[in-house]
Amino acid sequence: MIFGSDNMVGASARVLEALVEANAGAEASYGADKWTREAEKLLAETFEHELAAFFVATGTAANSLALSALTRPWSAVLCHRHAHIIADESSAPEFFTGGARLIQVTGAEGKITAETLRWMFERFPDDAPHNIRPSAVSLSQASECGLVYTPEEIAAVSEVAHAHGAALHMDGARFANAVARLGCAPAELSWKNGVDVLCLGASKNGALAAEAVIFFDRAQAADFANRRKRGGHLVAKGRMFGAQFVGWLRDGHWLELARSANRAADELSAGLARCPGVRLAWPTEANEVFVIMPTELAAKLRATGAVFYAWNRDALPEHETLASGEILARLVTSFRTSARDVADFLEMAAALNARH
Amino acid sequence: MIFGSDNMVGASARVLEALVEANAGAEASYGADKWTREAEKLLAETFEHELAAFFVATGTAANSLALSALTRPWSAVLCHRHAHIIADESSAPEFFTGGARLIQVTGAEGKITAETLRWMFERFPDDAPHNIRPSAVSLSQASECGLVYTPEEIAAVSEVAHAHGAALHMDGARFANAVARLGCAPAELSWKNGVDVLCLGASKNGALAAEAVIFFDRAQAADFANRRKRGGHLVAKGRMFGAQFVGWLRDGHWLELARSANRAADELSAGLARCPGVRLAWPTEANEVFVIMPTELAAKLRATGAVFYAWNRDALPEHETLASGEILARLVTSFRTSARDVADFLEMAAALNARH
Amino acid sequence: MIFGSDNMVGASARVLEALVEANAGAEASYGADKWTREAEKLLAETFEHELAAFFVATGTAANSLALSALTRPWSAVLCHRHAHIIADESSAPEFFTGGARLIQVTGAEGKITAETLRWMFERFPDDAPHNIRPSAVSLSQASECGLVYTPEEIAAVSEVAHAHGAALHMDGARFANAVARLGCAPAELSWKNGVDVLCLGASKNGALAAEAVIFFDRAQAADFANRRKRGGHLVAKGRMFGAQFVGWLRDGHWLELARSANRAADELSAGLARCPGVRLAWPTEANEVFVIMPTELAAKLRATGAVFYAWNRDALPEHETLASGEILARLVTSFRTSARDVADFLEMAAALNARH
Amino acid sequence: MIFGSDNMVGASARVLEALVEANAGAEASYGADKWTREAEKLLAETFEHELAAFFVATGTAANSLALSALTRPWSAVLCHRHAHIIADESSAPEFFTGGARLIQVTGAEGKITAETLRWMFERFPDDAPHNIRPSAVSLSQASECGLVYTPEEIAAVSEVAHAHGAALHMDGARFANAVARLGCAPAELSWKNGVDVLCLGASKNGALAAEAVIFFDRAQAADFANRRKRGGHLVAKGRMFGAQFVGWLRDGHWLELARSANRAADELSAGLARCPGVRLAWPTEANEVFVIMPTELAAKLRATGAVFYAWNRDALPEHETLASGEILARLVTSFRTSARDVADFLEMAAALNARH
Repeated sequence: MIFGSDNMVGASARVLEALVEANAGAEASYGADKWTREAEKLLAETFEHELAAFFVATGTAANSLALSALTRPWSAVLCHRHAHIIADESSAPEFFTGGARLIQVTGAEGKITAETLRWMFERFPDDAPHNIRPSAVSLSQASECGLVYTPEEIAAVSEVAHAHGAALHMDGARFANAVARLGCAPAELSWKNGVDVLCLGASKNGALAAEAVIFFDRAQAADFANRRKRGGHLVAKGRMFGAQFVGWLRDGHWLELARSANRAADELSAGLARCPGVRLAWPTEANEVFVIMPTELAAKLRATGAVFYAWNRDALPEHETLASGEILARLVTSFRTSARDVADFLEMAAALNARH
Repeated sequence: MIFGSDNMVGASARVLEALVEANAGAEASYGADKWTREAEKLLAETFEHELAAFFVATGTAANSLALSALTRPWSAVLCHRHAHIIADESSAPEFFTGGARLIQVTGAEGKITAETLRWMFERFPDDAPHNIRPSAVSLSQASECGLVYTPEEIAAVSEVAHAHGAALHMDGARFANAVARLGCAPAELSWKNGVDVLCLGASKNGALAAEAVIFFDRAQAADFANRRKRGGHLVAKGRMFGAQFVGWLRDGHWLELARSANRAADELSAGLARCPGVRLAWPTEANEVFVIMPTELAAKLRATGAVFYAWNRDALPEHETLASGEILARLVTSFRTSARDVADFLEMAAALNARH
Repeated sequence: MIFGSDNMVGASARVLEALVEANAGAEASYGADKWTREAEKLLAETFEHELAAFFVATGTAANSLALSALTRPWSAVLCHRHAHIIADESSAPEFFTGGARLIQVTGAEGKITAETLRWMFERFPDDAPHNIRPSAVSLSQASECGLVYTPEEIAAVSEVAHAHGAALHMDGARFANAVARLGCAPAELSWKNGVDVLCLGASKNGALAAEAVIFFDRAQAADFANRRKRGGHLVAKGRMFGAQFVGWLRDGHWLELARSANRAADELSAGLARCPGVRLAWPTEANEVFVIMPTELAAKLRATGAVFYAWNRDALPEHETLASGEILARLVTSFRTSARDVADFLEMAAALNARH
Repeated sequence: MIFGSDNMVGASARVLEALVEANAGAEASYGADKWTREAEKLLAETFEHELAAFFVATGTAANSLALSALTRPWSAVLCHRHAHIIADESSAPEFFTGGARLIQVTGAEGKITAETLRWMFERFPDDAPHNIRPSAVSLSQASECGLVYTPEEIAAVSEVAHAHGAALHMDGARFANAVARLGCAPAELSWKNGVDVLCLGASKNGALAAEAVIFFDRAQAADFANRRKRGGHLVAKGRMFGAQFVGWLRDGHWLELARSANRAADELSAGLARCPGVRLAWPTEANEVFVIMPTELAAKLRATGAVFYAWNRDALPEHETLASGEILARLVTSFRTSARDVADFLEMAAALNARH
């Protein structure tokens, strides 16, 4: 019963098969191989748009390199105060951008609204060279609270960003889960509604280690190859990334994986909502379930071997507070989480509650 | 007949098997998994010494991160003028060190001698804060000319470096080939003779993408975890590196692979030396063969599908010059290069020469 | 009637005389001159403590270099959200620290309280290497709202900072005004109450361009000479800074200047408080007066040649809001502001109000 | 008898007068003052060209900031192996450029020839993103050996640089001495012959601390204001630099100062050449005299209070070597060096020789 994170499992069978298949034979190195070309082709088809894609091994590298292409060292990046780039990626963004500054935006459920953003842009001091200026806005899809941005919300945010000369970056570590949830085209959640650069994460959803930095305007990617190499992120055997993405994207496999993880999250969420003494912190829209539960119940569940973590209480909405003896917990499902895993966990919770 | 580079093939069967095996089951992320622990254990056994090891996906990342731990932004790093870190890794070393400077050292066959190094240290201006000071020396094992440093040579270089307050870094992209050639213990080619930090490369010799930054003095690794994360080089599914290294190191597999590549290089080298109009630029000691050959012959060989590249003529020894119509060529063998591949290539060369 | 800023006037007569006197004769360069030595001696006497002092031309350089000595690239610096280092110095702090992050602390009247700081330290995520950690707290003396930190307040803040392993940096751009206001020893406002590094500004209070980065623990200054040189802040003719500080510190001249500026601010503040339609945003403690006044009155005053600027309304306390037709204005006095200047301005304001 | 450096004296009387004159009255800060505007106007007249000028306090800041505007972090800068930027400015160039690399060019008498440069550009590896590429060439006027580049030499170098997509930067720490020596227009030694950015140094030739970064193409200066501020080099009281440059440039004062220093160097050079046992290392063209003299004579001269330093023997031409008991010495004259100073020193040398 592993709900600690979606990065605690390996790769999906099909992604692994692609890796194994790609292992044979000689290929040009540094991304000039046929697997990388095929992956780029599949991405262009998936997004219905020409694009420039660059593969790296981690989300931190993808996000930081992408932001470095959208900023100057004296720029600011506006992102939610709980965004992964500001909360969990050390100072990688500052490192790769040469010192651009991340500015926190507040918002319910880990999401930024166009209104808040407009307010911030309009109040942002603008006395160069003393003040820095925002050159990018970053959204996390799904948000760090596991909620998704709709095409309309993305359009509204990008309109404000672009109106103020800022580009829109999307940290798509769970982009697949959002597409699966909303059932709309990947294009709708990206370029069609103003996303300039998308960091499409595969690692959390079926790949071993594969992230794609996707520029929908090739011009913005002009020196990205230099940035990636300088960061030590250009792997010699490029097939490694190419093959993972081919296996992941082919025949919509990536969305099957995401749907499966989302389904498990829905069942877990519904079940826990019915559990006495447990309440949802906010709705479940992707593959992360956030609940407020008795500390004692959490401890007992862990004692049975269940894995999940307490979450930053600062994420709670204003109307919601933890009573003493309560914790905010995050449970994450993955493409491997089975209905059985969820049922077992819920039964265990019910049993422990009963005995309680 | 692929002699372009040892990074044009995939992983060895056993490394791939380990990857597949490790793919199953849940593991803690970010390197806290059992495969990473096992790999660390195997490294300590292999080097007969306690050590701190950090895994990353590329040699550029390994070298640059390692150098960042041995320098201050106002330090210098002495390396051979053809060293990979100065010639082929963009400005990654400057990026990760915050601006430390690479200083070129000359030397025959891509190697640095203790004498040259002593001469340089003694002449190095020392008027701080105006002048920068060397805090590290970097050796490439094998050298960019494919020659190996003996334990004695390493000891002599490290003695000079340490006497002047500089640490010794080793770019071990082909460390395995050197160990296989010299038949001595890995410890003899590293800590026992003064290597402080070794970047042990597996990618060129049987892995898919796996490099280990090895500190023989844990104290020097104090903040390396921060450096790796900040560089975006901490992968979520750490098992990916752990498994590759386990498969690579277990039962001396890594040395079998290196011996196989070296053997192919020996045969290729001997055969080409017998080829009319072709001469070796210098001896073959690892898995790289450097020959001077007629441009026309090179062109004809390539026309048959053989892959190999011209090399920087600056690497030639002083007594050696290219006649017009000649090129310096590098042919690299890999663990996958068969006796058949070599024989075919040599026959082809002989035939083309005959027709010539 | 210049109340735009205290950097719109030149140097005081005595500082200028020292500069002129120091101009004669030959001196060793790069700070090895007798004027620099004398300035260091005077600083040690002024602060009743041995110290390491480094002179630079700007407050931005002083603050950024000082913070770079107290942080690692993966550190955070806690400072008030209106602190000069975060609001007005571009991304210089990130540049010099190699990417450390400034974290905003809220607080009334531009001041940080020990309570808020403790709350933040206790909630600060601590999962290295994913999270960054605060290694420094920065106070502005006087605050950006022109209020001063008492010795007790500084002691309380430093206690919290030190308890959490963070050093205390003080941006002392108006340190002199605070000392003059509180009438306590410079030592009381610095090392005796936990300030580790003080950036003592002379430029705003009588010098032409001279700031001192003062380390009360020499050990923390170990590589500062390298940092200053690397930043291009080591001037050849060190006497330039030495002489300014000698002229500024000798016979308590610096405090006379500050007292004069504070006195003018007090008169201006009292006068404006009596002015119909005008109210103080908060008390005046240094040489800056913040008032809420009718936009129309401000316009008329400017039309007469008076110079002062509107200020960021975000600085207003919660209970205070601007009515439409009102602005928050900042008026700064300098050592050169005469009683006459203040009287003229107040008369003008009264007259314009009457006519109103 | 101070021949240690031209930065061991203060400012010229007229520069100091300008500083004193500018000290009175209120001025807008951060370079919006009338003195800065006047200095910019004088520079445009002096160079007969529209330009964008930025003032900073040190040559290291000027050079590093200028190079940062001409490079990307993955660029290289070609400069003479003895250039001040590579030999005496710590790693400031790497710091400000974000890691661009300085590549050493060899050449007699501290000068780069177009031929050597062409040879280097043609051999420069060009396999992006693995290899870095030169985006700038830097010349020192006068060279670190005190020789000057003629308009023809500058034109030849700039032609090669531009032909290979590199800009031409000139470190003009002693530009004034070169203009005075050659008697040609400043324009001839800069934009008319291909100099893109000139760092015009006044500090070594009569100013207290004032350097101008001059862009002859304003477009290249687009973000320089941000770079200067971020580096902490934007002083609040801009008049400080403006006044120095006004006093320095007005009525050709800067060239009078340079001619005076050059004249003293000529006399010193001629006198030393006649001195038994002393020989010139190379001709004297600016205000620096390089001689090979008996170590004993040097010691005796110093014992009398004369100040001058031994110089890096690596600078010696191939045909020239130091005998044991000989040193290479550098003697620098300044605008303040009188005929009397020179005569006294020569008499002393003669006397010591005689007694010898």
